[in-house]
Amino acid sequence: MVLHRLSSRSALAFLAVAALLCCGQAASAAEKQAKYVFFIIGDGMAQPQRTSTEMFLAAREGKPHGTVKLHMSQLPAHGMMTTHAANSIIPDSADTATAMACGVKTNSGMLGVTPDNKPVKNVAELAKEKGKKVGVISTVSIDHATPGGFYAHQESRDNYHEIAHELVKSGFDFFGGGGFKDPAGKKSKAPQGDAIEAAKAAGYKVVTGREGFEKVSKNDGKVIVINEWLQDSQAMPYMIDRTKKDLSLAELVTKAAEVLDGPQGFFIMAEGGKVDWACHANDAAGAIGDVLDVDAAVVAAQEFAKKHPDETLILVTGDHECGGLTIGFAGTKYDSFYNVLTGQKMSFQAFTDKMAEFKKSCGGNCSFDAVKPVVEETFGLKFAGDAKDAAVLKEFEVAKVKEAFDLYMAAPADAKSGYGADGKDPQAYLLYGGYNPLSVTLTHLLNQKAGLGWTSYSHTGVPVTVSAGGAGAEAFNGMYDNTDIAKKLKSAMGLPAAQVASN
Amino acid sequence: MVLHRLSSRSALAFLAVAALLCCGQAASAAEKQAKYVFFIIGDGMAQPQRTSTEMFLAAREGKPHGTVKLHMSQLPAHGMMTTHAANSIIPDSADTATAMACGVKTNSGMLGVTPDNKPVKNVAELAKEKGKKVGVISTVSIDHATPGGFYAHQESRDNYHEIAHELVKSGFDFFGGGGFKDPAGKKSKAPQGDAIEAAKAAGYKVVTGREGFEKVSKNDGKVIVINEWLQDSQAMPYMIDRTKKDLSLAELVTKAAEVLDGPQGFFIMAEGGKVDWACHANDAAGAIGDVLDVDAAVVAAQEFAKKHPDETLILVTGDHECGGLTIGFAGTKYDSFYNVLTGQKMSFQAFTDKMAEFKKSCGGNCSFDAVKPVVEETFGLKFAGDAKDAAVLKEFEVAKVKEAFDLYMAAPADAKSGYGADGKDPQAYLLYGGYNPLSVTLTHLLNQKAGLGWTSYSHTGVPVTVSAGGAGAEAFNGMYDNTDIAKKLKSAMGLPAAQVASN
Repeated sequence: MVLHRLSSRSALAFLAVAALLCCGQAASAAEKQAKYVFFIIGDGMAQPQRTSTEMFLAAREGKPHGTVKLHMSQLPAHGMMTTHAANSIIPDSADTATAMACGVKTNSGMLGVTPDNKPVKNVAELAKEKGKKVGVISTVSIDHATPGGFYAHQESRDNYHEIAHELVKSGFDFFGGGGFKDPAGKKSKAPQGDAIEAAKAAGYKVVTGREGFEKVSKNDGKVIVINEWLQDSQAMPYMIDRTKKDLSLAELVTKAAEVLDGPQGFFIMAEGGKVDWACHANDAAGAIGDVLDVDAAVVAAQEFAKKHPDETLILVTGDHECGGLTIGFAGTKYDSFYNVLTGQKMSFQAFTDKMAEFKKSCGGNCSFDAVKPVVEETFGLKFAGDAKDAAVLKEFEVAKVKEAFDLYMAAPADAKSGYGADGKDPQAYLLYGGYNPLSVTLTHLLNQKAGLGWTSYSHTGVPVTVSAGGAGAEAFNGMYDNTDIAKKLKSAMGLPAAQVASN
Repeated sequence: MVLHRLSSRSALAFLAVAALLCCGQAASAAEKQAKYVFFIIGDGMAQPQRTSTEMFLAAREGKPHGTVKLHMSQLPAHGMMTTHAANSIIPDSADTATAMACGVKTNSGMLGVTPDNKPVKNVAELAKEKGKKVGVISTVSIDHATPGGFYAHQESRDNYHEIAHELVKSGFDFFGGGGFKDPAGKKSKAPQGDAIEAAKAAGYKVVTGREGFEKVSKNDGKVIVINEWLQDSQAMPYMIDRTKKDLSLAELVTKAAEVLDGPQGFFIMAEGGKVDWACHANDAAGAIGDVLDVDAAVVAAQEFAKKHPDETLILVTGDHECGGLTIGFAGTKYDSFYNVLTGQKMSFQAFTDKMAEFKKSCGGNCSFDAVKPVVEETFGLKFAGDAKDAAVLKEFEVAKVKEAFDLYMAAPADAKSGYGADGKDPQAYLLYGGYNPLSVTLTHLLNQKAGLGWTSYSHTGVPVTVSAGGAGAEAFNGMYDNTDIAKKLKSAMGLPAAQVASN
């Protein structure tokens, strides 16, 4: 040290500069609480879902060997999170939402409670108690497991009616996205009356569709915004299927941030729920569309953060992996052809619905030749052409398509969950996973031609990447458990660390 | 600020304390260079390989729903690394070794050179120039792509003879593990004489087997240690196949650290190369064994680090994923049965060799019934039993085993790479990937019963987890490219950052 050679005045100046230089970052990180928090969850979105999207973007831009980074990947902090449930290596979205929202491990299917069914206060409830405004957004039904984890406490995630009433009782300020699965309590043992009416009675303004959505303002007080077209199970449509009338996750996030902005800040949880659903069906193009929807929501959050860069935390993760997606397939070896994915024009779900119409149109007796142009148009696959064209089906692949088509045509018109889902034919389940056999065969083949593989129709247990930027983001570096997300969020917002049973 | 109320003396004391408090960590991180560096690479070891090992350990301890953390997972810093080559989303071990050692992207198959074949100095060479001792260790042949990336510069990784002579010319202090693939230059267009003789002439002590290995000491000067049993392609045996006579990666690391310890420190690269080979063959139990071998090497490094905790950097990563391993399989849905993997008694390679003997024993005309007890004994699979027992083969699975067995029996005795490897039958390749059809069918079934899926016989493009502890470890948090590994290593060791062409 040279200090002893300096006068005390010089030393003072030296140390002041040293302190400023050294302390700047550490001190600011310690001091700055996350007043505004965006917690953006891609359901089923692990690293393979993110990477395949980045490679798809690059291929679409004519760079087949590179990647175009998602905005979430460009955030400064990144960690890896284990996702197992208390009773299973492979989690479901209820136990993962409980882990991330409440900080406790619970059993699969349980929501906001411990394995012995004790409710645990979650970060959104604690944020609300501290005076923050709270928003909960999902592209699937708003009473689904992931959004429910931030306001509900139920032994089973399937208690949709009870969850809807917990939504109303939460008093949270903004709900948006999909609809309700059992508002009237048709599946409940103890129905509590229509949940949507109860919401209105409790002061919520319930808005459906774009026109009403665009008019929502701070003056409306508590709001519930529901997209007009609910494609499947009260969920917003897949991004790949949306029309201009449909909302996006980014629009919902932007609106929520606008109306919740205030002196105490806010906590917004926004879920892209259909990444998961597309992955369950092994539909990569569908999943990639919804990953891009999630990433656009990250950009929306970053736009808000420009106003409060030192007080805004943006946290992005998946709750678990889904489908066992990998960035390589035996048939393509070391090659990749992501450009073929651009040929897919709708989700597996929209195609399944289209096929139902198609089947009806010929009285259930359509020819294979009749479906070929529909397949080519929808997926960009080709039944004939230069063998070097990655989109051209090989002979054994055409045979697989025909087998699936024949199976679908032979099935009863009201078949909803056949093709292996009943557990009686394990081989059929491996092939089709209970989905429309033609749809899943076509997405399998298209994805494999791109160079993507799937191993499951369920979630998997691979750890998930967490990315963060802004106030308190550094804490999300490293390797940790999903229960640590709640702890780190509480710390970032200055909320009480201890678990508190609610009621 | 309260400073203006303090005397300059008091302010000096205040600031000195503040500087100490704030600067402690940052300053020490900046000041402490990594004098001793262990760079431990699991070839083909990405997060799924690590996680499946952790779940296997838990199942083996009777905790089927938990994990037992690997030592590498308990290191304090973790990052995610992209792995693509300059000309491919899916890399090979030559371009990844080049990226991590030299800091440049090159084409698949190119080693220590740019895509236009310009040599680039690597971190090991720079460390050597700075006066450090250097050790290069691999469980596969020591002239293989990953170890070669730390001392060789070749347009093709297949130039084994030239690589062996570059090893000799490197003057590095310790080489250990597998043997040489073309020391005499039988496959070289311009043979340079026997590389092992050249090594001896250059002052290397060449030691084969445990007895000689254990006697190696600081007094020996430069050494090359080769395991006695070279199982396949001059590689050490899979961990699952090793006898007491065989060395382990941990023993090699411990010995290297012992003999290279000195005033300038050392740089040791140690590769577990057979994680990758087992994953190519879709053999999870084989891969897990070698992940554990890598993890034991991490422990060996940690043992050394206890002596120099502030000056030792332990860096652990894979170079790329291999096999498209996922922690979930369609047939097991949300369940996992990792305990079934404990039934496997040898690697796919040892079983393949065993089958060759078996086939010979019956003149190529063995009955399916005759092989059943061998299968049960080797893999723990059962041809009959309670259907609830995860190890019991279902009817359609037995049919798959029989089909593979019949194919193997019908193949010519000298068939080495049939079963789809010749590219003529893409369906056969999907099923068997060019491996012994019985072996790969059995590991597929066993792994699927555990709840593990594979999608490829090649590498994949999923990013890889990097873990680090000790001096400079924090720099390995975050998300970055494999070329950044070289840059971060140079920074940690205080080596020149700029790329320098050698020669």
